[in-house]
Amino acid sequence: MEAWGAGPSNDLTDVEGLAVGHHQQVGDGWLTGSTVVLAPPEGAVGGVDVRGGGPGTRETDLLDPVNLVERVHAVSLSGGSAFGLAAADGVMRWLLGQGRGFPMGGPGELVPIVPGAVIFDLGRGGRWDAVPDGSFGAAACEDALRGGPAALGVVGAGTGGQVAGGLKGGVGSASLVLPGGATVAALVVLNAVGSTVDPRTGELYAASRLLPGDLEGLPGVAPGARLRTPDAVEVEAARERAAEPGPGGLPRTLATTIGVVATDATLAPAQARRLAMSGHDGLARAVLPAHSMFDGDTLFGLSTCGGPAPDPALLHLLLQGAADVVSRAVVRATLAAETVSTPAGTWRSYREAFPSALG
Amino acid sequence: MEAWGAGPSNDLTDVEGLAVGHHQQVGDGWLTGSTVVLAPPEGAVGGVDVRGGGPGTRETDLLDPVNLVERVHAVSLSGGSAFGLAAADGVMRWLLGQGRGFPMGGPGELVPIVPGAVIFDLGRGGRWDAVPDGSFGAAACEDALRGGPAALGVVGAGTGGQVAGGLKGGVGSASLVLPGGATVAALVVLNAVGSTVDPRTGELYAASRLLPGDLEGLPGVAPGARLRTPDAVEVEAARERAAEPGPGGLPRTLATTIGVVATDATLAPAQARRLAMSGHDGLARAVLPAHSMFDGDTLFGLSTCGGPAPDPALLHLLLQGAADVVSRAVVRATLAAETVSTPAGTWRSYREAFPSALG
Repeated sequence: MEAWGAGPSNDLTDVEGLAVGHHQQVGDGWLTGSTVVLAPPEGAVGGVDVRGGGPGTRETDLLDPVNLVERVHAVSLSGGSAFGLAAADGVMRWLLGQGRGFPMGGPGELVPIVPGAVIFDLGRGGRWDAVPDGSFGAAACEDALRGGPAALGVVGAGTGGQVAGGLKGGVGSASLVLPGGATVAALVVLNAVGSTVDPRTGELYAASRLLPGDLEGLPGVAPGARLRTPDAVEVEAARERAAEPGPGGLPRTLATTIGVVATDATLAPAQARRLAMSGHDGLARAVLPAHSMFDGDTLFGLSTCGGPAPDPALLHLLLQGAADVVSRAVVRATLAAETVSTPAGTWRSYREAFPSALG
Repeated sequence: MEAWGAGPSNDLTDVEGLAVGHHQQVGDGWLTGSTVVLAPPEGAVGGVDVRGGGPGTRETDLLDPVNLVERVHAVSLSGGSAFGLAAADGVMRWLLGQGRGFPMGGPGELVPIVPGAVIFDLGRGGRWDAVPDGSFGAAACEDALRGGPAALGVVGAGTGGQVAGGLKGGVGSASLVLPGGATVAALVVLNAVGSTVDPRTGELYAASRLLPGDLEGLPGVAPGARLRTPDAVEVEAARERAAEPGPGGLPRTLATTIGVVATDATLAPAQARRLAMSGHDGLARAVLPAHSMFDGDTLFGLSTCGGPAPDPALLHLLLQGAADVVSRAVVRATLAAETVSTPAGTWRSYREAFPSALG
């Protein structure tokens, strides 16, 4: 049996046919952006699983497997809370201009199918109304057209992301090639009420899920770096810096982690939803707490149908893999993040907060 | 026991605190529009039930009763298929300007909650890309601010509506005051693959659900008019005019009927969903077929919480009433419609197709 391992780019673009693009605006009150996952022109079979208590979504009802439309042409992930749903309008218009969409009859009579979800990042750049609009979605599509590996860290929809303890969130991604050659990969926009770091040890909750090579290629992480338990003095300092909970023990802010889990194996719409469901197990292992009432955690499942349909044994592996690529993507988002300061505050990167963790 | 009867305006605005506004564009390739239902400033408890096979929706996941947000500030109903989801962005920005939204902390830090759904009406004015954007939603909000009864017929989101047989759809509404004083009312945007007219008799399927006064105040319907079985020659002519199904017996177009069922009785979020569920029974009685794979039929349930919570007996009546106001709203939409011609075709009104039906 072949060994499991990450794909060549170790990100969502290892699923052939998918492209990832970002657009963001930072400074002058802004700290937000949008990310688009472009499906192949014929679309990808889609599903969704919404497990956070405060979701912001669009076009998720059509993904119910009992419904007509089976393929989506893009997934729009954005900052801006519910205002950021507007990014998807720009993605739709961009796709229409490219001649991509659900065919309705005559030439050019297309309706691009663009489900989407948003994270809460309002005010983190200083201005409440500095939110993505349709132009962000269109610009992210243009960026995706350039091809290549997905940019990770403080980019796109992850630009304003944070996690508990005043740490910076962002975009992470990871891929896995299964025995037999099917690929499963995830891209997450990490922004959580919970933390990715165990406050008792300073270790990343899902560090044990990492594969060899997962630290390679991350911005700011030296080649050959390995994770180790950080020094106690750093752990203590992080605990002291971590913001106390708000009045009544409530979180001080809303959050939300969103993303896409995808495979080239041919899945039915209900199986694409199952892929997203398994992805949430990976989120649960990497973020504590996950799926809170103050998160809108939402994952989309996509199948490009580029390979054969899985038999039950392979589907079983694929779903385990879906959980793992989400866990690894969350860890990689945490490690790729960089410290950001705005008039609204400072979010320290894990690397800056725990410099001894990367030996 | 008091008699059941329609409220003073016999439309959704009989639920105190709700306002209805429309905006539309007709001519030069356009035949579409948007409708907004404005909740009171503090919001209305909301639920949703999506029963069509091709829905186009936004912010429906947050309405799941297991989730955090319980109140919505407006519901956006629009033409333009998925492109028309953009109307809700304009509604959000308008509400923010009014200081309405879910409070997130400091002054002005609000997120307006605006679930929405769309109908398929693309190309009916002649141009595929003539679709509502955010400005339509904002203009509909301004119209709603003027107050007064809801305009019915070929207005707002119903501007491009149609039903089977080449008949015109549009906006309908009806209300019901229950024994004890609670009001339940519906507003529907009628646009269906199915028909509201029995092709064997020319009668409206749900005519038997009408209450005294339901024909009053409809545009083009003479005071004191009553419904009767239309002359056989009209029924035969309508059958001949009705378009044959498309290749393979498929409908020639997508459609979708959307709307809002509301009450002033105080409902929990799960009961608001139940209100929408019962509303779909009224749709099933008034439109045949309803809820097809080529419709995205979606109803929202709203409670303004202006009156007491219903006991089980009153809730039972309220849910029966929810079905009936939807049936009556569909009939009234059919009767209020006027004939429309564009470069893409002619849609005849029921009144023009069956002139003898209104005696």
